[in-house]
Amino acid sequence: MQGSSPGAAPGPQPDLGAVYLEEHRELVLEEIRRIIRAGSPGDDRAYRLMLDYPLRRAKGLRPALCIAVCRALGGEREEVLPSAAVVEMYHNAFLIHDDIEDGSLTRRGGPALHRTHGVPAAVNCGDGLLALTLGPLLANTDRLGLGRALRILDVYARAVIESFEGQAQELSWIDEGTWQLTDADYESMVRRKTCSYSFVAPGLVGAAVAGAEPRLEALLVSFLESLGLAFQIQDDLLNLEEGRADYGKELAGDLWEGKRTLMLLHALRSAREADREEALRILRKPRPAAGSPEAGLADLLRGMVEERIIDEAGRAAMMRYLDRRAASSGEKTEDDVRFLWRLIDDHGGIEHARGVAGRHAASAEVRWRELAEVLADSVHKRFIGWLKDYVVQRTW
Amino acid sequence: MQGSSPGAAPGPQPDLGAVYLEEHRELVLEEIRRIIRAGSPGDDRAYRLMLDYPLRRAKGLRPALCIAVCRALGGEREEVLPSAAVVEMYHNAFLIHDDIEDGSLTRRGGPALHRTHGVPAAVNCGDGLLALTLGPLLANTDRLGLGRALRILDVYARAVIESFEGQAQELSWIDEGTWQLTDADYESMVRRKTCSYSFVAPGLVGAAVAGAEPRLEALLVSFLESLGLAFQIQDDLLNLEEGRADYGKELAGDLWEGKRTLMLLHALRSAREADREEALRILRKPRPAAGSPEAGLADLLRGMVEERIIDEAGRAAMMRYLDRRAASSGEKTEDDVRFLWRLIDDHGGIEHARGVAGRHAASAEVRWRELAEVLADSVHKRFIGWLKDYVVQRTW
Repeated sequence: MQGSSPGAAPGPQPDLGAVYLEEHRELVLEEIRRIIRAGSPGDDRAYRLMLDYPLRRAKGLRPALCIAVCRALGGEREEVLPSAAVVEMYHNAFLIHDDIEDGSLTRRGGPALHRTHGVPAAVNCGDGLLALTLGPLLANTDRLGLGRALRILDVYARAVIESFEGQAQELSWIDEGTWQLTDADYESMVRRKTCSYSFVAPGLVGAAVAGAEPRLEALLVSFLESLGLAFQIQDDLLNLEEGRADYGKELAGDLWEGKRTLMLLHALRSAREADREEALRILRKPRPAAGSPEAGLADLLRGMVEERIIDEAGRAAMMRYLDRRAASSGEKTEDDVRFLWRLIDDHGGIEHARGVAGRHAASAEVRWRELAEVLADSVHKRFIGWLKDYVVQRTW
Repeated sequence: MQGSSPGAAPGPQPDLGAVYLEEHRELVLEEIRRIIRAGSPGDDRAYRLMLDYPLRRAKGLRPALCIAVCRALGGEREEVLPSAAVVEMYHNAFLIHDDIEDGSLTRRGGPALHRTHGVPAAVNCGDGLLALTLGPLLANTDRLGLGRALRILDVYARAVIESFEGQAQELSWIDEGTWQLTDADYESMVRRKTCSYSFVAPGLVGAAVAGAEPRLEALLVSFLESLGLAFQIQDDLLNLEEGRADYGKELAGDLWEGKRTLMLLHALRSAREADREEALRILRKPRPAAGSPEAGLADLLRGMVEERIIDEAGRAAMMRYLDRRAASSGEKTEDDVRFLWRLIDDHGGIEHARGVAGRHAASAEVRWRELAEVLADSVHKRFIGWLKDYVVQRTW
């Protein structure tokens, strides 16, 4: 699938994406360090916290996309770097708050920030990263002139609102226990929550730095929306895949969290009445939380045996009571999650989601051919082509 | 104390502030509704959530200050209203996240947002209010021209960073158990966390809308910093005062939370070694949390008696064990908080804080006389004078 873009030069393309990502990740991290130091000097603790997620293992797709679009359109690296750093800072701020909101346990191969530093510091750290994005965007007025700087601010403001809206939509489904959802509902949520700030905005920011024409911007939006949808569906599919230890999230964390995905929505729509009822009963249950009364109780009962307040037989009887209680009204169990998994498998949920992702990837491919015609060959253009194929490969 | 500003017209001044606040609060709320509707149409749930705190009983000091400064300097109401609304939206976003970070139970006479709608929705709601502040500030370019719009964005960006820094400072003291702090440490934190976005920024935004000169801006900053410090110290003093049911926070919530205040820091510095040790032991304990393992445990044990898993004697023995455990290593008790209160009283903590607040209020008074000389008489100027006196009156 590599090198399908018309006019791409031959060469060792399989490594192109990895090299491009790694090189730009370093540049962007250096820029982020500079921004944090300049914006908030002297507070080493807050500074370290803000760099925690950015420094973990990550591909840096968003800033690389921003830079590649800008440079493929003739913009300079120095012109786009601060805005690309902002794109990555916003992403990390979003992840920190998203992990709190979803109750995620891990992120990028380590514990989520609110678990290592507590919810208060994590909420504030996300706010701090957000706060520091404004300075570089305002400094763009000197760097790029008012027109381009304001265009970038407009793009950024819209993306930030849309990701809030997508998140609000998802949280309201969770809060109200809504599961009767169409694929279009899912896509409307993902378009705002993920596509907007992860694909469309990085591309439009890069285009704005390069001073791209509106016609080209429209083509870019269409390309990146399709690419973003394919990417997110594939992200959900990867979360489902068991045993991929290098994926960096808890295994099938989405099922434990009760996240709305195409696979699960399809299975719920296709399942027999009784299975759907059982699935909905499971999905109403919260995931087991560290620090819940039940979790604390097991520790306390062990302590009571040691202090001879109760004996071992008493402890065992009480633990059996707790297990019965958890099974009837408590939290999701591993058996519950396995039930959901089987339901998805039995009704072809994975094939369904792959099909939808494939259609979005095909749309992206069509748009890419149009875009590729107007872009001169460069390593940056080739990287965008690589990124498109990377998303496609993730899909099937 | 009313009407001390030179050149102020005679009249029924005791009501001036209340009338001015009420009138502008309505205008600002209407503008906030417009901004939320325009920025995020169609999402009624998120919209209602964002209006929850703004619609609760509140004075609206910040936007009123912003408008009054602008108009006292000759600016128009329509020019400043969107930016004043942004000031109030930022304040509410900050409060929503601050309540999560401090574990506050109530806000403005009702339960904190994260307690009524959960932490996930509250984190996202604060992010949403923040996201929606960018649009009106960017639209200022059309309304006010580029120069003034960019100046306002600069002021806003600085305030947002400073309030993050102040919050990070306070959280790091809590996290690291730091209590050996001077009044200057406290003031450095408050200057960034509260004064900046609550007093200095509203004033500077108003001045920027009116196109004020740099010399006047510097005078304004100096006036508003002193006023903001006096205000925050008085806010801390009010929190300590018991029995003021109309104050809208939990009684002495600051002591339960272990907040660093001038009163407590002074008492810790002045106390005998043994009392200081006891106070620090208390302050290390968390406040009792609804839903802690211990709280859930009492319920569970009662359930076990009902289901004959254990008998009443067993339950009583276990509860005694839990009480011993809580007393030695558990959460703050009412006796603990009373001990802190007495320590503050015994060492003149309240008088000390009042004295410091009084000195800041006196500085504000001096600056105000300078400012008042260059401002023509108007209801807006008189409101600023009223606000200064209001802060002073709160102080003694």
